Amino acid sequence: MTGRYPDQVVGPQPVTPEQRSAYAYLSAVTERPTAQLWDLVDAVGPVEATDRIRRRQVGDALIDQTEARHLQVDGDQLMDAAHEVDARLLVPGDPGWPDWALLPLDRPRGRRRDTSGGVPTALRPLGLWWRGPVEPERALSRAVAVVGTRAPTAYGRAVTADLSAGVAVEDFTVVSGGAFGIDAAAHRAVLGVGGTTIAVLAGGVDRLYPRGNDGLLREVARTGAVISEQPPGTGVTRYRFLDRNRIIAALGSATVVVEAAARSGALSTAAWAAALDRPVGAVPGPVTSVASVGSHLLIRDRGAVLVGRAAEVVELAGGMGETADPIRGDASSWDGLDDITRRVLEALPTRGGLAPGEVAASAGIPPNTARAVLGRLMSTGVVIRGPQGWRRSGTGGVQMSLPVD
Amino acid sequence: MTGRYPDQVVGPQPVTPEQRSAYAYLSAVTERPTAQLWDLVDAVGPVEATDRIRRRQVGDALIDQTEARHLQVDGDQLMDAAHEVDARLLVPGDPGWPDWALLPLDRPRGRRRDTSGGVPTALRPLGLWWRGPVEPERALSRAVAVVGTRAPTAYGRAVTADLSAGVAVEDFTVVSGGAFGIDAAAHRAVLGVGGTTIAVLAGGVDRLYPRGNDGLLREVARTGAVISEQPPGTGVTRYRFLDRNRIIAALGSATVVVEAAARSGALSTAAWAAALDRPVGAVPGPVTSVASVGSHLLIRDRGAVLVGRAAEVVELAGGMGETADPIRGDASSWDGLDDITRRVLEALPTRGGLAPGEVAASAGIPPNTARAVLGRLMSTGVVIRGPQGWRRSGTGGVQMSLPVD
Repeated sequence: MTGRYPDQVVGPQPVTPEQRSAYAYLSAVTERPTAQLWDLVDAVGPVEATDRIRRRQVGDALIDQTEARHLQVDGDQLMDAAHEVDARLLVPGDPGWPDWALLPLDRPRGRRRDTSGGVPTALRPLGLWWRGPVEPERALSRAVAVVGTRAPTAYGRAVTADLSAGVAVEDFTVVSGGAFGIDAAAHRAVLGVGGTTIAVLAGGVDRLYPRGNDGLLREVARTGAVISEQPPGTGVTRYRFLDRNRIIAALGSATVVVEAAARSGALSTAAWAAALDRPVGAVPGPVTSVASVGSHLLIRDRGAVLVGRAAEVVELAGGMGETADPIRGDASSWDGLDDITRRVLEALPTRGGLAPGEVAASAGIPPNTARAVLGRLMSTGVVIRGPQGWRRSGTGGVQMSLPVD
Repeated sequence: MTGRYPDQVVGPQPVTPEQRSAYAYLSAVTERPTAQLWDLVDAVGPVEATDRIRRRQVGDALIDQTEARHLQVDGDQLMDAAHEVDARLLVPGDPGWPDWALLPLDRPRGRRRDTSGGVPTALRPLGLWWRGPVEPERALSRAVAVVGTRAPTAYGRAVTADLSAGVAVEDFTVVSGGAFGIDAAAHRAVLGVGGTTIAVLAGGVDRLYPRGNDGLLREVARTGAVISEQPPGTGVTRYRFLDRNRIIAALGSATVVVEAAARSGALSTAAWAAALDRPVGAVPGPVTSVASVGSHLLIRDRGAVLVGRAAEVVELAGGMGETADPIRGDASSWDGLDDITRRVLEALPTRGGLAPGEVAASAGIPPNTARAVLGRLMSTGVVIRGPQGWRRSGTGGVQMSLPVD
């Protein structure tokens, strides 16, 4: 990470107790890490940010966002509650704090903003409550997310176990969501081979959820880690599950979906991974199985790589790091494009996003054609499929002029 | 097709009996349609070509290629043998003669040449022996190839039947190879819904092969067509099966592989389709099923589209025709490429082809990285995966300079 404010610099200088307590406060004072909150923390640091929020010396948006909790939250008290379950708070500046800054959505101007007026979720959490003996720096240096439906088939469970155990013995940490079904099968298989697994919960790390996985999650906390961006005492809600999925996607260098129905939450994790430019893998199954519909959708339409063996997951999570950025398109590369491709590019916005059907309507071409062209352009890096839909990627990228042959 | 020689022009002028007899001779005088034979026919027409071959007034290569059969073959006799099984010979100039000229491998300078000194197979056959009532023009205007292993699972048979019947009722002709397993399931399902199906045999249309499919192939010949580029009386050989696969791939506007083991002949059909720039679809299955290994390989590594429903096959075969040529790379588009991509491009030949491992060795990068970059470049049209391996596509393509925005 980078130290963009005076009181936190990279390197030997450790996080002070005062800073940590401030992050604890900040992690709880809004429901989600908002763009405005991060702007403030980036500008003045966590201690001063906490102070300003308490004294109401912040902008209108932050006033609103922190209205309900600014007096009620107590950072030290949250830290004490965490210590009761042997959990601690990992914050920016700690060894192992994930390098969120490298993620495109977390760039100062690239942070996700909801133009509809709602409060968007910033990518970076303000802290990760960490319950478990495994060191973040080691555990997250080589990690893959394995997720899927809560209602898998026997085939899905078996493949999950094979893949998870297989990557665990290759020293990958397996990150999942602690849920029933595929998640539980992944955690269990890793525990079975003595590997490292991390469960990212939607609620507090002192409230192991779901209760039916209590024993499993205790074992994960005993050997690996049960983590959450939500402070101790927080219960689960639907949107906390969705927010949680971005943490799972961001911690893995790749995300693998084993089985997922058409509307599975695993698809939201995969969408986050794709938005973060992380490779997504999906395990195919019979086309007659509803539990594989989501996986097939990912492979067919969303650029996921078909994976079926642990070695293929290792390649996805480890090997892709060695390939550099995709070829970037720029204005001059529009020369020579065929007419349909040009119309698709012209139909795309540079911010926000459109559904393929909207692109098709705007370009005056059939939806299937639009989808085919979008897929082709995505693979060149010219267009991006973000959470809001398809858009053109930034221009630029012409930095070298190398001889041919 | 185009009439490149004086005695055959496009349009109302029908093929004369003399020309048809000449094509019958030419289709049998070499084992395979060779580049030299087509060069001669393109230059002087079939009647004169036949005459020159008989009189040995041809180049050394053709002298060699026709040495064994030039006296023994009799075009009229072959036509008579065909008539005995109610078959006829479809030749260039006939309505419905496939538009091979549009296929990249069939361009005058792009024709496949085997630089190792062997005799390569030209894409275009010199004729198609056609046994069945269906009119070529109608049957081939909307056709999809469905192929797969001779040893499918029950799942593979069921999906083959669903897909084949599903596209047949959408007025697609289903082209397959008449073999046991997936091929037979495809033909049968189409017959079951009263659709049109064509079996492309490796031997003569008077020798229905395999014998175990005799009843099925008779029914195909009674309602659709059993066809072959090999003249009546020809038996099957291994290389005739491989040569035959190119005809299957060329007649379908897309090729779908249902189940295929790692070394299935269906993969050669898929490779031909890819070389012809036709979309390839593959049906996924359990990753634990050996019968799906080839399909997964196609999806993972060879750009095949995952298909599971007839509508997806229809989209592949019908819709892709509406998308224009892929974006072509040219020298200027090397600007701004990352180092690894550039090294991969530099490692690639413009003729022949390399295996990914050879590319990796030459570029000094890991094989997985090479494969990932090749896949990305293939989707942009900058590199091509032909039967001999990976190569750079031609330069050029910058013909328009269109305004941006």
